[in-house]
Amino acid sequence: MSRADRLAERVAERELDALLVTELYNLRWLTGFTGTNGLALVGADPDGLRRFATDFRYVEQAAEEVSGFERTRAPQELLEAVRDSLPDDVNRLGFDDAHLTVKQHACLRALVPDDVELVASGGLLERERAIKEPGELERIRAAAALADDALRELLEEGLAGRTERALALALEDAMRRRGASAPSFPSIVAAGAHGALPHAQPRNVPVATGTLVVIDWGALLDGYCSDCTRTLATGELGGEARETYELVLRAQQAALEAVAPGPLGREIDAVAREIIEEAGHGERFGHGLGHGVGLEVHEGPRLSRLGEEALVPGNVVTIEPGVYVPGRFGVRIEDLAVVTGEGHEVFSAFPKELTFVD
Amino acid sequence: MSRADRLAERVAERELDALLVTELYNLRWLTGFTGTNGLALVGADPDGLRRFATDFRYVEQAAEEVSGFERTRAPQELLEAVRDSLPDDVNRLGFDDAHLTVKQHACLRALVPDDVELVASGGLLERERAIKEPGELERIRAAAALADDALRELLEEGLAGRTERALALALEDAMRRRGASAPSFPSIVAAGAHGALPHAQPRNVPVATGTLVVIDWGALLDGYCSDCTRTLATGELGGEARETYELVLRAQQAALEAVAPGPLGREIDAVAREIIEEAGHGERFGHGLGHGVGLEVHEGPRLSRLGEEALVPGNVVTIEPGVYVPGRFGVRIEDLAVVTGEGHEVFSAFPKELTFVD
Repeated sequence: MSRADRLAERVAERELDALLVTELYNLRWLTGFTGTNGLALVGADPDGLRRFATDFRYVEQAAEEVSGFERTRAPQELLEAVRDSLPDDVNRLGFDDAHLTVKQHACLRALVPDDVELVASGGLLERERAIKEPGELERIRAAAALADDALRELLEEGLAGRTERALALALEDAMRRRGASAPSFPSIVAAGAHGALPHAQPRNVPVATGTLVVIDWGALLDGYCSDCTRTLATGELGGEARETYELVLRAQQAALEAVAPGPLGREIDAVAREIIEEAGHGERFGHGLGHGVGLEVHEGPRLSRLGEEALVPGNVVTIEPGVYVPGRFGVRIEDLAVVTGEGHEVFSAFPKELTFVD
Repeated sequence: MSRADRLAERVAERELDALLVTELYNLRWLTGFTGTNGLALVGADPDGLRRFATDFRYVEQAAEEVSGFERTRAPQELLEAVRDSLPDDVNRLGFDDAHLTVKQHACLRALVPDDVELVASGGLLERERAIKEPGELERIRAAAALADDALRELLEEGLAGRTERALALALEDAMRRRGASAPSFPSIVAAGAHGALPHAQPRNVPVATGTLVVIDWGALLDGYCSDCTRTLATGELGGEARETYELVLRAQQAALEAVAPGPLGREIDAVAREIIEEAGHGERFGHGLGHGVGLEVHEGPRLSRLGEEALVPGNVVTIEPGVYVPGRFGVRIEDLAVVTGEGHEVFSAFPKELTFVD
C-alpha cells in the first residue's frame, strides 16, 4: 500500500473529505519532495484527490521527486493553491493544527468557501510516519552504523587535551566523509561539569583527564536520522561518578528490555525512572526517556510521562536516561532501537560498559 | 537603549499591555538565550514585566545567557508559564500569529483568563531585528569575510572534475576550519543545467569544463549569517551563457546602486526586474530580488514584489537576481550589503566579473 493510500484510510476514518499537508517532513514522507516550500491535498477516497503544489523555484525538482500526485505550480504564498485545487465536494478539510500558524489558518479560512469546515487534524500523518517501512529501517540502521564508525575513528586519537568543539567538528567531519549529508543534530561533546547540561553546546575548552565526557551525536543519511549517546571516561573516576554511571546503565538496560509491542510510552519511561528515583536521583533526570526517530531526529512516539501511545512494530525509538549533577558531571546513555514483532532490535553498536579513553 | 526597551516601545505603540515572544530567533535577539525551548513576556512599561521561562534542560544555560529578565523554570509545555507569570493588569496580550500554531493558540486561550484579549502581533519584533546594531553588523561582516576566504581556498584546487557534493563539503569544511559554527544554510553548488534549479542540491556528479557553476553559500559565525552567490565558469562559454551572465550582472549592479534609505523593497526589486524583463528573460527570474539577513539567513526586510517597507539604515539585505534557462544553465549573482545613513556598504568582496576557474 502506498503511503498516500495509508493516509487516505486515516483521512476517511476521521470523516474528513480531504487533508491538507503543509509540514515539510510530513510532505517529504508523503510525496518524496525534499524542497522547502510545498503542500499536498489528499482525499479520503483511495482513487481520489492527490494534489501537490510548489512554487517556481521547485517545479523542476518536484517533477523529479513527486509521483502519484497531480502537480501544480503556485505562487510562493502556497495556500492560494488550496483554493484553486479544492474540489467542490470537500466539506470537511483537515489541517495540521500543530503546524499551521494562526496567521496561515486565517489566510486559509479566507481562501476557501465559507461552507468548508476546517478541522484540526494534527498528528494524523505523524502516526503513520512513526511506523517505519522496511526501506526506512534500512536507512536508519545504516545511519546508526555510520555514526558508530565515526565515533570509533574519533576515539582513536583520544579525548583528553582536545577541545570539545574540536572533537565535535572532527566527529561531524568523520560522519560526512563516510557519506552522511549532515549531522542529524548539532553534536554534543560535554566534559566534566559541562556534561550536567543535557543540551550542552561544545566549548573551546580542552577535555580534562579523569572526567566523564558525554557525546550525543547522529548522522543524517539518505534523509533519515540516527541518534546515540555514550558517556566515556578519560581516566579513573571518583566513586560518585562511577556509581552514577552504573545506575544510568542499569536504568537504560532495564528500559531497553521493556521495548516491545504493547506497553505505552510512559510505561517504558517509568521503568528507567523508577530505578533512578529509587537511587535518590529522580530530580536529576528531568527529561523524558526517549523519542521516535526517522526523517526527524525527534518525532513520535513519545517515551515520557506524557507518552500515551502503545508501542507497535516499526516504531524506532531512543532509550536515553540521564543523571545530571550540577557543577560536577552528567551521565547519559542512549540506544536507538526498532520495535519488532516480538521485542526489539538495537541499532546502536558501540559498547555501553564504561569505556576509558585517554 | 536595550533591546527589551526598544521592544517595549513597540508594545506600547500597539496598545498592548504585554507581548509574548515564542519564536526562538526572536527570543535569542531579545534575551540572548540560545537553547531550543523558551519564551519571554515583555510589558509595555519600560520598568515593567520582563519574564523569561525555560524547562529543566536549559535552566543552567539560561542563567548564563539571559540577563535583564526574571527567569522561571517551567514544564516542557512552556505556555503554562504564561498563566503563572501574567500580571493581573494585562488585558491585551500580543502573540506572534506568524509563529504560534493553531494548537498552541488554543492552549494559550485555555490557560489565560477569559478577559485577556489575545492580539495577533506577528512581525513586531522582527521589524526591530531588521535594524542591526553596530555589534551585529560587525558579526555579519566577519561572517561574510570568512565565507569569502573559504571560497578562495576552494577555488585554489579548481572546480572541473570534482563533484558538486565534494565541492560543497570542501567549502563547508573550509568555513568550519576558519571558525564558522556551521554553514548558514545548505551550500548550493550547481553546474550546467543543474544551475537552472534556483535551490539545487549538490549531486554526486563531476563538474564539466566549459560550463557555468552557481555557488550559493554562507557562514554562521557567532550566531549571525552571511549569504553570497557567485556564478563561475569552468572554461570558455557559449554566447548565450556569456550574455546571460552580463545581463544578470548589470541587473545586480543597478539594484545594488539603488540600495539606500528610502526606497521600498519592491522598488529595489523592480530595478533589477525591469532590466531582466527588457532583455526578454522576465519569466526566467521567478524569485524575489533579496531578503534581510541576520540571526536568520532569511529575515526582514523583503526585497520582492511584496516588499512594502522602506529601507532604513541598519538593514542588511541580499541583492540576488538570477536567470534560469531550464535544461541549459542558470546564473545568479548575490551580494550582501548594509544600508547606511547615505547609501550602502557591500560586505561581499569576491569579484563579480565573470571568473574562469579550471
